[in-house]
Amino acid sequence: MGRVTARVRVRRISGSSARDRLDTLVVEEPLEMRVGGRPLTVTMRTPGHDFEMVTGFLIGEGLVADAADVHSLRYCAGATEDGVNTYNVIDVVLAPGVPPPDVSAGRRFATTSSCGVCGKTSLEAVRTRSRFTVADDDVRFSTGVLAALPDRLRAAQKLFERTGGLHAAALATPDGDLLCVREDIGRHNAVDKVVGHAAARYGLPLRGTGLLVSGRASFELTQKALMAGIPLLAAVSAPSSLAVELAAQSGMSLVGFLRGDSMNVYAGAHRVVD
Amino acid sequence: MGRVTARVRVRRISGSSARDRLDTLVVEEPLEMRVGGRPLTVTMRTPGHDFEMVTGFLIGEGLVADAADVHSLRYCAGATEDGVNTYNVIDVVLAPGVPPPDVSAGRRFATTSSCGVCGKTSLEAVRTRSRFTVADDDVRFSTGVLAALPDRLRAAQKLFERTGGLHAAALATPDGDLLCVREDIGRHNAVDKVVGHAAARYGLPLRGTGLLVSGRASFELTQKALMAGIPLLAAVSAPSSLAVELAAQSGMSLVGFLRGDSMNVYAGAHRVVD
Repeated sequence: MGRVTARVRVRRISGSSARDRLDTLVVEEPLEMRVGGRPLTVTMRTPGHDFEMVTGFLIGEGLVADAADVHSLRYCAGATEDGVNTYNVIDVVLAPGVPPPDVSAGRRFATTSSCGVCGKTSLEAVRTRSRFTVADDDVRFSTGVLAALPDRLRAAQKLFERTGGLHAAALATPDGDLLCVREDIGRHNAVDKVVGHAAARYGLPLRGTGLLVSGRASFELTQKALMAGIPLLAAVSAPSSLAVELAAQSGMSLVGFLRGDSMNVYAGAHRVVD
Repeated sequence: MGRVTARVRVRRISGSSARDRLDTLVVEEPLEMRVGGRPLTVTMRTPGHDFEMVTGFLIGEGLVADAADVHSLRYCAGATEDGVNTYNVIDVVLAPGVPPPDVSAGRRFATTSSCGVCGKTSLEAVRTRSRFTVADDDVRFSTGVLAALPDRLRAAQKLFERTGGLHAAALATPDGDLLCVREDIGRHNAVDKVVGHAAARYGLPLRGTGLLVSGRASFELTQKALMAGIPLLAAVSAPSSLAVELAAQSGMSLVGFLRGDSMNVYAGAHRVVD
C-alpha cells in the first residue's frame, strides 16, 4: 500500500546547520462516501482499509445496524485526466430492505430539526441512540492489562515510527490481546476502521472488548464505541467533559491518561480491577 | 468563563494504589451555526470566543470574504426545560448584499457536484479557492524566532496545563510576537478562533504573519491559513502529504516538527532565514 506514506524533499534545520533530505509523510486524501450513488459525506483520511472505514462510519452514524446491512462496496471507476483512478470515491450498496440514509438529515447539517441543538442539553443534541446496551456488560479489565496496552499498540503501529503523524485505535480483549489495530491521520477514521473490521468479522455488539485510542477521548469516539456495543474505552490522553458525561450515562467505562502503570478512570470503575 | 473546564470525580490508579479525587477536564460542547436562521453546521468545540470561531469558520469555508461580511452574531435565545440557555446555537446575520451560503453545497456533503471528488486529483477535489495570493508575500521568519514560538505558545496557553487536552493556535509576527492565541479541543476550531479574531481586528489578508499550531499540520489547517492570506504555517508536529502539496502549489511556507532549535521546512523555504 504505497499510498499510505509519501516521500518528500525537506529542508532540515538544526541549530545553524541546514541540509536537504527526503522525509516520509503520512498521506492524507479525501474519501467521498456514496450510498446507492448519492453522495453522503467527504472525509479526509489516510488510504487503506477504506471499505472497513466506510462500514464503521455508517455504523457509528446509526445509518446501518451491522456489517450485514452493507451488501457491497466498490471504488468508483472515475479517473482523472491522466486516466488514474483516485480510489477516493466509494459507493455503498445497502442490503435489501435497509433504508437509505436521508442525506439532508446528516448530524452535521441538522436541517431537518426545527430547532437543532437549541433548547436541548448538549448530550441530547448530538447523541445518536445506540441499539446496544453496554451497562450490563460484566467484562473486567485488570489494571495490569490496561497498563500494557499502549506499548502493545505502539509495537503494532507500523507507520507511526516512520511519519510521527498517525493516530491509532485497537480492539482489545481482557487478556490484553489486540484483535485489530488500525492507523489513520484522523483518530475517528482509525476507530471507524476498527469497528468496520470487527463488525464484519465478529458481528455487533462487540461485548466483552475494549477500545484503545492513541490520543484523546472525545465525545465522538465515545459515541462510536457505544454504537458498536463496546463497554470500555481507554485513551492514552485526556477525555473531554462530554465524553465522560456520555460514558457515565451509558454505563460505559472510560479510562484516560493511560501512561506507564497509572491511569484515570472517569466512568464505570467497576470494570477496572486489580 | 467557567464553561471552558469542568471538574469531575475520577479514580486515579497508580501501580497498586487507587484513590478518588477531582480532575479538571476540558469542556466539549456542540455549537450549531446558523445563517439567517437556517442551520449550516454543527461542530464540537470548547466554549469561548464563539463569535470569533464562527466568523473564522465562515472565512475558512469561503462563505464570507472578510469579517465585514458578517453584520452580527447572536446566541439563540432557546433554553432547555430547566430554563437554561445552552449558548450552543449562534445565528449569523450577513451584511447587506452578501449572498447566503447554499447549505446543500457544503463541502462535506458534496451533493451539488455530479461527480464529487471522483475524477479529480485530491487537491482539486477538496480545495476551496482563496481570494488571496500568498506567493508574493516577502515576509521572512528567522529560525531563531520560529524556534522560540512553541515555548511562547505554551506560556500563553492558560488551559493546557490544567487539562492536558487542548490544542492551541496563534498568529505570530516576524518579531516573534503572538498577536492572538486561542485554544480548543479541536485544532481546526482554535485556528478558526484566531482567524476570526484577526479578521475583525486587522482585516484580511493577514500578510506578513505566520500561523502557529500546537499539533500536526493537516490539509484543513493549511487551507484555513490560505483563506486568510497567511503566508506561513508552522506546526509543532508532522504535516500531511496533502498539506505539503497545497502549501507548495500556493507558494506558502510550511514548517513542521518545530522542536527545540530544529525544524523541517516542507515548502517555501525562502521565507525561513538564519
